[in-house]
Amino acid sequence: MNQPAVEDFMKPAEAYRWLLDYSTTTALYQSMRSLLNWDQRTYLPKGGHSHRARQIAALTAFLHRRATDPEFAEMLAKAEASQVPGQPLSDETVNLREWRRNYDRATRIPEALAVELAKAASQGELAWESMRRENDWKGFLPFLKQIISLKRQEAAALSTGGEEIYNALIEDFEPGENVGSIEALFDRLADAAFELLEKIEAAPRKPDPAALQGDSPESVQKTFIMEILSQLGYDLDAGRIDPSAHPFTSKIGPGDVRITTRFDPNSFVMALFSSIHEAGHAMYEQGLPVEHWGTPRGRSVSMAIHESQSRMWENLAAKSPGFWKHFYPLARRRFPWLNKIDIDKFLFALNEVRPSLIRTEADEVTYNLHIIMRFKLERMLIGGELEPEDLPEAWNAGMERYLRMLPPDYSSGVMQDVHWSSGAIGYFPSYALGNMYAAQFYAKAEEKLGNLQEMFEAGEFGPFLGWFRQNVHSQGSRHLPRNLVKAATGEDLTADYLIGYLQRKYGRLYEM
Amino acid sequence: MNQPAVEDFMKPAEAYRWLLDYSTTTALYQSMRSLLNWDQRTYLPKGGHSHRARQIAALTAFLHRRATDPEFAEMLAKAEASQVPGQPLSDETVNLREWRRNYDRATRIPEALAVELAKAASQGELAWESMRRENDWKGFLPFLKQIISLKRQEAAALSTGGEEIYNALIEDFEPGENVGSIEALFDRLADAAFELLEKIEAAPRKPDPAALQGDSPESVQKTFIMEILSQLGYDLDAGRIDPSAHPFTSKIGPGDVRITTRFDPNSFVMALFSSIHEAGHAMYEQGLPVEHWGTPRGRSVSMAIHESQSRMWENLAAKSPGFWKHFYPLARRRFPWLNKIDIDKFLFALNEVRPSLIRTEADEVTYNLHIIMRFKLERMLIGGELEPEDLPEAWNAGMERYLRMLPPDYSSGVMQDVHWSSGAIGYFPSYALGNMYAAQFYAKAEEKLGNLQEMFEAGEFGPFLGWFRQNVHSQGSRHLPRNLVKAATGEDLTADYLIGYLQRKYGRLYEM
Repeated sequence: MNQPAVEDFMKPAEAYRWLLDYSTTTALYQSMRSLLNWDQRTYLPKGGHSHRARQIAALTAFLHRRATDPEFAEMLAKAEASQVPGQPLSDETVNLREWRRNYDRATRIPEALAVELAKAASQGELAWESMRRENDWKGFLPFLKQIISLKRQEAAALSTGGEEIYNALIEDFEPGENVGSIEALFDRLADAAFELLEKIEAAPRKPDPAALQGDSPESVQKTFIMEILSQLGYDLDAGRIDPSAHPFTSKIGPGDVRITTRFDPNSFVMALFSSIHEAGHAMYEQGLPVEHWGTPRGRSVSMAIHESQSRMWENLAAKSPGFWKHFYPLARRRFPWLNKIDIDKFLFALNEVRPSLIRTEADEVTYNLHIIMRFKLERMLIGGELEPEDLPEAWNAGMERYLRMLPPDYSSGVMQDVHWSSGAIGYFPSYALGNMYAAQFYAKAEEKLGNLQEMFEAGEFGPFLGWFRQNVHSQGSRHLPRNLVKAATGEDLTADYLIGYLQRKYGRLYEM
Repeated sequence: MNQPAVEDFMKPAEAYRWLLDYSTTTALYQSMRSLLNWDQRTYLPKGGHSHRARQIAALTAFLHRRATDPEFAEMLAKAEASQVPGQPLSDETVNLREWRRNYDRATRIPEALAVELAKAASQGELAWESMRRENDWKGFLPFLKQIISLKRQEAAALSTGGEEIYNALIEDFEPGENVGSIEALFDRLADAAFELLEKIEAAPRKPDPAALQGDSPESVQKTFIMEILSQLGYDLDAGRIDPSAHPFTSKIGPGDVRITTRFDPNSFVMALFSSIHEAGHAMYEQGLPVEHWGTPRGRSVSMAIHESQSRMWENLAAKSPGFWKHFYPLARRRFPWLNKIDIDKFLFALNEVRPSLIRTEADEVTYNLHIIMRFKLERMLIGGELEPEDLPEAWNAGMERYLRMLPPDYSSGVMQDVHWSSGAIGYFPSYALGNMYAAQFYAKAEEKLGNLQEMFEAGEFGPFLGWFRQNVHSQGSRHLPRNLVKAATGEDLTADYLIGYLQRKYGRLYEM
């Protein structure tokens, strides 16, 4: 590791510089792991998967050792001791705060468990990939059991107080959140969604999904998507788009933030919206302060803030009338069958509300219900109130309660998401939190910038992105998420903006 | 690094096991660097290059530290002390031999120089990429000077005796070789090439290059190439083909050996032969003993042996009549314009001998002249008899002497190859050595297996590949190259087989 040895006479400022250097080197190795992961999900040949798992395990063990290095702890203590009080938002304070948080968490996890987790996550994801396709719950169950067992161990190791251990996993994705802080928001959201859904189902007006279907050659889709993403502000010289079975964003480093998508030859809609979603993540990453790269100050702060960016572009921006008034002529040039489709008909079909089996295909109203259900299930799984073998039954009961539907098979039921199999337990709440953040940010941006729909219609996305660059992206991890929303909008996080937005939008569309 | 501490009471067998583990872990990190390199040359966005250089520099420094770790040296000494004499080819002896060779070399290079070299190589390659395109010698020269200066330092650091320092760079690619051992072979080869070329130029029969030209859509080329490579034995489940500006092979790990190619829409010939060349490299890597992966015993032994595989498939196999009697029907289905071209006319055009400016486009007779000229130039560059600023003049003088041509610009002259700019000085001799190894191996395989042309015509490539699997690939680094050829063919390396092969082949084609 070749860092200078700790010297007793080292000044605190030198200790801080040592930590900056250490942190940046760690980030370089993390960014290598990002490339290993990107490649695993895009171009890795079938025969290379077991070697890739070994590479990732070796790098994970190495990173765990760096994260728990006693020399790092000594330096950190030295730098902390000299902190100037009263500057909670200085770069130095922010870095020390996050280094401390990460170090304390990392040292609670034994290296063997960290490596086991990485291995199980990699194998679990691979198993899910093939077994979901074959609806093979029995084959998949051992992998899931292994992951759940390891995640329970991890959660127990991370937990400090007497609170439920699932909180420790939430904290991984959402610093500052816990079951208690989330539940009240989710309950309001669920009630509002049920109420809205009831009205929508009673409304006589119905969209025609056929308005979204037509010949969409992959190469034309790709060109179309790149034209749109460029206009939104995704820098393609610092990114790229590749096909993958499941769309994702990969931040490999400054100047290199990639997205993936998947194509449906009969409609450009799936690839377009998944691309805009991922580009929302990618634009956040591209907007982080590059001068702080490799330190907490330069990092995205949480998955909910990340999802607020992706879901805001995907839904609040790209499913709005202003957006399509601008892009519809281009869409018609690329996909001539749209010439027979009236723009209002297209927009209504795009925004159809209807309970569905698959989370990623859900509309904006029912989406949060999918999340809330998963939140409750994973909480029980980690708490030990639910065992993996009983999950399908619990899943179906949840689907009946929240969506009033039953999946015909495992693939479109309990096996539909990659998250649990890849160890991302505690992640789901971030999606619904992200929706709330998105609506609250959007309202504030509109208050500052004026009528956003008119700007979108004129093809002006720069000021909108600029507001986020300034108030969210460039902030990195300076504020914890709840403080970030307060700093950016002047208010605490609330479900009101999201609920109000949904009521207005769907009230108009369904003429209720 | 987390290796067990050296204990005085550790048994030699334990030390050896420690070394195996250490070596395999090192190889895992090396394989990460392979992926970083592969991605850099295929899909890395423009904006990501400077971050990639940082990643590679960090990993290179880390690998250098591992290669020179004193604990490794202690373990190595302990294991060496207990070696059973008289078993020079046991796995253990081979591993200890190579670990010692590599350790002694690595410790002679200061870490700062190793990192500087990696950085300069990465920047040099990038500069070459863009500046070659623009024929910008002036812009390129500072990068080249930097590399040459660093490589001189490296060569000086590596040199132990009083011999010329260029030998130390050859040794990097060809263990056991030096200027003296190479020169005699190259002189014979040059004389034979000049003589053969004179006869060919006097021969009345001339091929028609137009026989190779016709509409060749990229997607059809790719399918065609994959069909051929599969039949030859390249396992596409453990590999893939991507486009890149300059074709290369990347061994990322067991089950993952990738090749790249580039396409000419007016002829499938360039992409096909560059792919067969790279697949030759890749099949060698795929045939290495996987149970020894990560240790010297499981590694390819030298670049000449590597080039013997690539150039044998590309030339001795894929430019032969038997090969095309088998594949011509498939080629005609994929590229219908071939139906108007008689197979003999196609084969003659494929094997046209004519001095050319570009090494990679050279025929089998003049190819070695390109190499010999580069060998002499890089020897002078490292020896300090030639300075980078005088290289274009020396290049052109060499071209006049060896090929009797003058390049009209830098791009097709001194700037045509990536090797020097990327630090691969001492590599060129391996190509011509590889041609000699290839011809000698081929002759022996034919002696053992029977008429190879008849086998190729019948589409039987398995026994041929099998001979190499057994006699070359599975040997890994057990034998040094000169011993490998002796073990496989019963004879020392000689230029005779290559010269004889060229005389027979071109005597027939040109009816001399």
